[in-house]
Amino acid sequence: MYYHDKRLQYPVRVEKPDPLFARQLQQAIGGIEGEIRVCLQYFFQAWGARAPNNKYRDLLLNTATEEMGHVEMLATAVALNLEDAPLSAQEEGAADKVVGAVMGGESTRQVLEGMMQRHLLSTGLAAFPANSDGVPFDCSHIYASGNIAADMYCNVAAEATGRTLAVRLFNSTSDPGMRDMLHFMIARDTMHQQQWLAVIEELGGAATLPIPNSFDQRQEHQRFSYFMMGTSRDGTPPPEGRFSTGPSIDGHGEFYAGHFEPLGEEPVLGPARPLSGAQSEQIDSKAIAAE
Amino acid sequence: MYYHDKRLQYPVRVEKPDPLFARQLQQAIGGIEGEIRVCLQYFFQAWGARAPNNKYRDLLLNTATEEMGHVEMLATAVALNLEDAPLSAQEEGAADKVVGAVMGGESTRQVLEGMMQRHLLSTGLAAFPANSDGVPFDCSHIYASGNIAADMYCNVAAEATGRTLAVRLFNSTSDPGMRDMLHFMIARDTMHQQQWLAVIEELGGAATLPIPNSFDQRQEHQRFSYFMMGTSRDGTPPPEGRFSTGPSIDGHGEFYAGHFEPLGEEPVLGPARPLSGAQSEQIDSKAIAAE
Amino acid sequence: MYYHDKRLQYPVRVEKPDPLFARQLQQAIGGIEGEIRVCLQYFFQAWGARAPNNKYRDLLLNTATEEMGHVEMLATAVALNLEDAPLSAQEEGAADKVVGAVMGGESTRQVLEGMMQRHLLSTGLAAFPANSDGVPFDCSHIYASGNIAADMYCNVAAEATGRTLAVRLFNSTSDPGMRDMLHFMIARDTMHQQQWLAVIEELGGAATLPIPNSFDQRQEHQRFSYFMMGTSRDGTPPPEGRFSTGPSIDGHGEFYAGHFEPLGEEPVLGPARPLSGAQSEQIDSKAIAAE
Amino acid sequence: MYYHDKRLQYPVRVEKPDPLFARQLQQAIGGIEGEIRVCLQYFFQAWGARAPNNKYRDLLLNTATEEMGHVEMLATAVALNLEDAPLSAQEEGAADKVVGAVMGGESTRQVLEGMMQRHLLSTGLAAFPANSDGVPFDCSHIYASGNIAADMYCNVAAEATGRTLAVRLFNSTSDPGMRDMLHFMIARDTMHQQQWLAVIEELGGAATLPIPNSFDQRQEHQRFSYFMMGTSRDGTPPPEGRFSTGPSIDGHGEFYAGHFEPLGEEPVLGPARPLSGAQSEQIDSKAIAAE
Amino acid sequence: MYYHDKRLQYPVRVEKPDPLFARQLQQAIGGIEGEIRVCLQYFFQAWGARAPNNKYRDLLLNTATEEMGHVEMLATAVALNLEDAPLSAQEEGAADKVVGAVMGGESTRQVLEGMMQRHLLSTGLAAFPANSDGVPFDCSHIYASGNIAADMYCNVAAEATGRTLAVRLFNSTSDPGMRDMLHFMIARDTMHQQQWLAVIEELGGAATLPIPNSFDQRQEHQRFSYFMMGTSRDGTPPPEGRFSTGPSIDGHGEFYAGHFEPLGEEPVLGPARPLSGAQSEQIDSKAIAAE
Amino acid sequence: MYYHDKRLQYPVRVEKPDPLFARQLQQAIGGIEGEIRVCLQYFFQAWGARAPNNKYRDLLLNTATEEMGHVEMLATAVALNLEDAPLSAQEEGAADKVVGAVMGGESTRQVLEGMMQRHLLSTGLAAFPANSDGVPFDCSHIYASGNIAADMYCNVAAEATGRTLAVRLFNSTSDPGMRDMLHFMIARDTMHQQQWLAVIEELGGAATLPIPNSFDQRQEHQRFSYFMMGTSRDGTPPPEGRFSTGPSIDGHGEFYAGHFEPLGEEPVLGPARPLSGAQSEQIDSKAIAAE
Repeated sequence: MYYHDKRLQYPVRVEKPDPLFARQLQQAIGGIEGEIRVCLQYFFQAWGARAPNNKYRDLLLNTATEEMGHVEMLATAVALNLEDAPLSAQEEGAADKVVGAVMGGESTRQVLEGMMQRHLLSTGLAAFPANSDGVPFDCSHIYASGNIAADMYCNVAAEATGRTLAVRLFNSTSDPGMRDMLHFMIARDTMHQQQWLAVIEELGGAATLPIPNSFDQRQEHQRFSYFMMGTSRDGTPPPEGRFSTGPSIDGHGEFYAGHFEPLGEEPVLGPARPLSGAQSEQIDSKAIAAE
Repeated sequence: MYYHDKRLQYPVRVEKPDPLFARQLQQAIGGIEGEIRVCLQYFFQAWGARAPNNKYRDLLLNTATEEMGHVEMLATAVALNLEDAPLSAQEEGAADKVVGAVMGGESTRQVLEGMMQRHLLSTGLAAFPANSDGVPFDCSHIYASGNIAADMYCNVAAEATGRTLAVRLFNSTSDPGMRDMLHFMIARDTMHQQQWLAVIEELGGAATLPIPNSFDQRQEHQRFSYFMMGTSRDGTPPPEGRFSTGPSIDGHGEFYAGHFEPLGEEPVLGPARPLSGAQSEQIDSKAIAAE
Repeated sequence: MYYHDKRLQYPVRVEKPDPLFARQLQQAIGGIEGEIRVCLQYFFQAWGARAPNNKYRDLLLNTATEEMGHVEMLATAVALNLEDAPLSAQEEGAADKVVGAVMGGESTRQVLEGMMQRHLLSTGLAAFPANSDGVPFDCSHIYASGNIAADMYCNVAAEATGRTLAVRLFNSTSDPGMRDMLHFMIARDTMHQQQWLAVIEELGGAATLPIPNSFDQRQEHQRFSYFMMGTSRDGTPPPEGRFSTGPSIDGHGEFYAGHFEPLGEEPVLGPARPLSGAQSEQIDSKAIAAE
Repeated sequence: MYYHDKRLQYPVRVEKPDPLFARQLQQAIGGIEGEIRVCLQYFFQAWGARAPNNKYRDLLLNTATEEMGHVEMLATAVALNLEDAPLSAQEEGAADKVVGAVMGGESTRQVLEGMMQRHLLSTGLAAFPANSDGVPFDCSHIYASGNIAADMYCNVAAEATGRTLAVRLFNSTSDPGMRDMLHFMIARDTMHQQQWLAVIEELGGAATLPIPNSFDQRQEHQRFSYFMMGTSRDGTPPPEGRFSTGPSIDGHGEFYAGHFEPLGEEPVLGPARPLSGAQSEQIDSKAIAAE
Repeated sequence: MYYHDKRLQYPVRVEKPDPLFARQLQQAIGGIEGEIRVCLQYFFQAWGARAPNNKYRDLLLNTATEEMGHVEMLATAVALNLEDAPLSAQEEGAADKVVGAVMGGESTRQVLEGMMQRHLLSTGLAAFPANSDGVPFDCSHIYASGNIAADMYCNVAAEATGRTLAVRLFNSTSDPGMRDMLHFMIARDTMHQQQWLAVIEELGGAATLPIPNSFDQRQEHQRFSYFMMGTSRDGTPPPEGRFSTGPSIDGHGEFYAGHFEPLGEEPVLGPARPLSGAQSEQIDSKAIAAE
Repeated sequence: MYYHDKRLQYPVRVEKPDPLFARQLQQAIGGIEGEIRVCLQYFFQAWGARAPNNKYRDLLLNTATEEMGHVEMLATAVALNLEDAPLSAQEEGAADKVVGAVMGGESTRQVLEGMMQRHLLSTGLAAFPANSDGVPFDCSHIYASGNIAADMYCNVAAEATGRTLAVRLFNSTSDPGMRDMLHFMIARDTMHQQQWLAVIEELGGAATLPIPNSFDQRQEHQRFSYFMMGTSRDGTPPPEGRFSTGPSIDGHGEFYAGHFEPLGEEPVLGPARPLSGAQSEQIDSKAIAAE
């Protein structure tokens, strides 16, 4: 179960509110690269952990719980960036307090047009679990496959896109408070990339491949297991690289590359049946007669 | 641009139709681990490729185009598994032709209840781009971040969950035709896992880390960059492993682990403003007076 | 504005409740071929009508209002089919009252497994605005383009898929009450297909083409306006038919067909910029130097 | 920030695994009545709290943190109900271990057809954040309006539908372990309903109305503020009740009821403009001439 | 069934078109606080009404039908606010007719950038069923639980957030026509809040609690039914208030508060099975041997 | 299966990058009127084709494959319009290179506010499969009904809304490169409208009606098959037109119009059952007594 401490994991402060940055920060809350995603992803991986012992369950719980604190920090940052945001195009005074008006020379109306309207209309100047376009986070992005190696690569992918986003946000703002918060978060993303790769290493590195490694590779069509398939219509082979020659990454085969021709035939499905709701032209007349 | 050949990439045949397996195969078409996802993901990564040269654009185009052929094979497999499926609980004869009735001793009604109803009601016994629960594929799952290393890990993750799914489908069916198709597809997933990892290796392996590697790490809060944060409320440190001691995977630091205490304070947001739609109790009375 | 009459547009009765048919009927409520969709589609087309006079606004309002009554009929039919459905696998008695147990010889548990679980868990044995897989209706399917001819074809498409669904439902049930309701609804779909096509005819038939007909066709690349493009990689032309030779449907040109070769070049995007969050390998070194 | 304890908030045990009940429990995890929803809803309300002091922020944090533990319990319950579930229709032995086979007399195939396929194909027999139809939870259901009274009613609504769901789940199972877990959860829902209503009472009860109470009611069209509008087309007034006569709940007016006639006119929108993509027939010819 | 009157329920006029306000109004159409939601919510509650008599069905039908008229008014308001909106950044003249250009001093391009692009690209300057970010309304927000008290609280919640939104829109505009429309709509939201609370009162007020009141409370774990659970990790109790001492709202118990310690154990799931698609490291070796 | 050519189907060039136009072009990629939709729609129709011969399967494959090339062109166009877009409000220099700054006199901040933030934050200045509001494309819009005539009308509808969108985009830009690309795409939409209508003609034109034409019309309630139903509450008949008198479009009947009165009764659902989670007030007391 879980406990809370009223204090934030790391200080969050905003020197000059910026409603546009509030909109951008939403991507780190409710975007597919964001923190709700990793938080729930690690939780669900932990809760379904079937490894022989509970070590990775523990590891995942630690980091999931940490990530919940990141969502809190970001939500706080959004609210602080919306303090003093205009509530109406008529509210002239308000805009002077925000970055756009001060530095961008924008009118209240222009500041307002650059805002996420739902910050004004739906939340009362607070964060909500959606991305920077207002698309709500949807939990289909919680990857927890039941295969620990697959999950670890999903986690590396999440932290790689997450740190890319955090760097872009860092580059987007000049507010010292926001930059301080992000230089902590970027460091944590660095660690999280490392730790999931460390689990892969601990599980044996290349020995985890191919994923799942519990499937007997003799049951796959091994002629195609290390073949770089070219689909250029003029027969140009695929580009050369580490993936086209030499030993495969898992050490079980040799890469090779080439053009590919269809091995199957043109498929022919049977005609529609009389009760199937098709047009008469699609229906087998013999079937009709037989009815 | 693109061209087609009417023949399938690999033969698809079904010895005994199985409407339940048709439902399961939908996961490989429209599931998040499925083939529409990787097809479009590789296409969008290719179309936005900004690498110094176009080598990876080409690589991605080859595999994206291959994957479109996999969607076609799976859609064909779904339609073949639905041939002879019952269209109504009254249609007694039909059920005898499908696996459930023959082997499972099910009545037509029972076969029908185990089907995806939209195969009957919406598609006329054909595949559609949704998963095995009928949830339509949604393109938020197309990961193309503009960072090539992040994208490659997204691709490994997709192929790892994809091969896990393909193995589960293989284990679910005993139809020789379906097993033959899947033993080709599993082999291709093996290759695709390898090839994206090979790109990582070609880009320098650990040198790609942390992703993005173009961000000056001096701007991150390096004290926390290789720290395994423990969030156990009784101070129990996180589990020990490759991720808690020793050199970091990127070689830029040393892992260490420990308990973490909040560095921030309890956040205090300003009161609501008079025009914000809050309750009076939430609104700063001075602000009201000042109006 | 709108008014209601407590009576149903057409009688709805169920002789023998069938929870499986309740699940199937959901497709006609909340499916993309269903009645909420056409109801809201016609309303939004009406409310945005900019035709020179309000005739089509009126027409649309009449049919939209009619469709709201169809949703009501279907929701009533779902509830009636769920009367006496089992609430638990332990509730043995209940199942005897439903079709599956009576005719299919199913146990209470089997009847329950064939049900939509949300009928039991979320609605208390009533309809909800989702399709037969429980996917909620989403209003992106409300097509109202601001172009009246485009909208009319969207409406024909909706009624064509709608009547196909209704026919499949009719074929799926043998309940006299349900068949009576559906033979009314199928008739209405017949009419609605006709009426939207009649509007096309009234607007001039072929003269509505190409849609929008307000765009000066001299601004389109007319060499390709009536060309059936072949993309077979071996140069096989597309199949022959009404679409490959003879006058075009709009009468503005002649169909012709052939193989197509790329007219463009391989695209080359510029390298990534230093602050863009890409990997260093993707970034223009000159840009970095210039910073 | 947040902390975890590896132990569960309350014991979770399953005497006899039941894959159908695993599917039903998903509704309590990822359904709109479920625990992810209330957990995140209370968190976002807390993080955006602008009440004069932080009391309600604290209250919300306590209960949000509690709810995260409920998600964990339910996810554990799903995994335990899936232990021994069949992985394939061919896997005859497995089914004997689950309730359906033992008590329902179902074959392995029938057990499998009653399962959520994604439990087998996507998660490796574990929970995922979706409802009992496999529809992923989407965060548009996190209601946090910035108005504390509105939010409290949203919370009562969530706990009322949540307890209704929990009761239905309780009634659906006869497993002593599951009933024990649910009789704890139902008690917690009881409390949560009470506590949010207690906040309403603390805020003044009727004095919170109408919500928001910060809006000057003289600016609303007060003639219609306590009027029960009848829309029966034959002029039948709405039913009589507490809502049609007597003092209004907020004490600011008197309820009255009656039939309503339109006060507005038929709307007439201007014709489409030449560049708007409409059909020529929708476009103002004068506008064309003027171009 | 339903009938229409071509006239609007209340006059809708716009003195000066404002494309930004058109975007904001979308929230009241297709937002979760909007009118499509309450319209369909009341309809589905009515259509599934199982109260002993049909009184509440009638009540719900009256208000659902009223709400359909509100959607119509808002859609008309959006279209009127888009009259004269620019169709292109090149269309200099157009902008002069809209508020942004006149009062905000914006160029045509700036006006255009502040618009919802789909108003231009998808609808031909009309409303569509999406919120102010363009996210389509999705019917998962139609709450109709089959429990009348739960539904009434859902309705109060909807009208509370709805009136909050309407007040924010009122505060956002200075157009006399729009303010007149909204002062009617705000009044109606006032009434609807009252009327659903009146139903709760009529059903017995506290006697409706806990919801559902048909569940025998002896089957819940009553020690926890009125306990305010504290989850602060340092043992700080939850804040004091109406919810922590004194009689519970339902009168069935006494509130009390305190810190909570886990009652459960760390969960241990069994190892993965050989055919489950897990990594070998997750699989029980004995199970493999036994195969 | 499929093949690729690295060259584009038609040249794509941008003279002056315009980030706002990049946002608008997204609608043609991931909007419901866009190219991913038609591409996948034609593919799924082809893959499920059950016509007596494979002619229409071939036709669909040709055009689906063509459309994939259109997605590629549009994605390239988006990336080119984002070259030189600002990455931060501080990045003053960048804005000078884009249209908004040059022609609209906008500051970097204003250019940035008009951009789709995810172009900056999520994609690294490239396209993604979402519409102009950032809503991801979702495959529920792939219409493939199993009825060939219904599908053809779905295709006409898609190309009619698609060409309307393309015309609006053409009118929105003055860039010669973009106009050249669009005048090719508009021509292709012209053709595609024609070709699907040509298939309807080839299938017999009116003989395809009503869709599906395989349903025996004697089973529909023919009194209502050609009746224009009026729902005006004062009995005003629907407007007169081609749809109210004269022969029906299918030639099977005569249109007629009139007012409609309910044929059904007020529905009465049975009371709730004791275990259904309803309130006691909704539950049949006899049922309780009988338990």
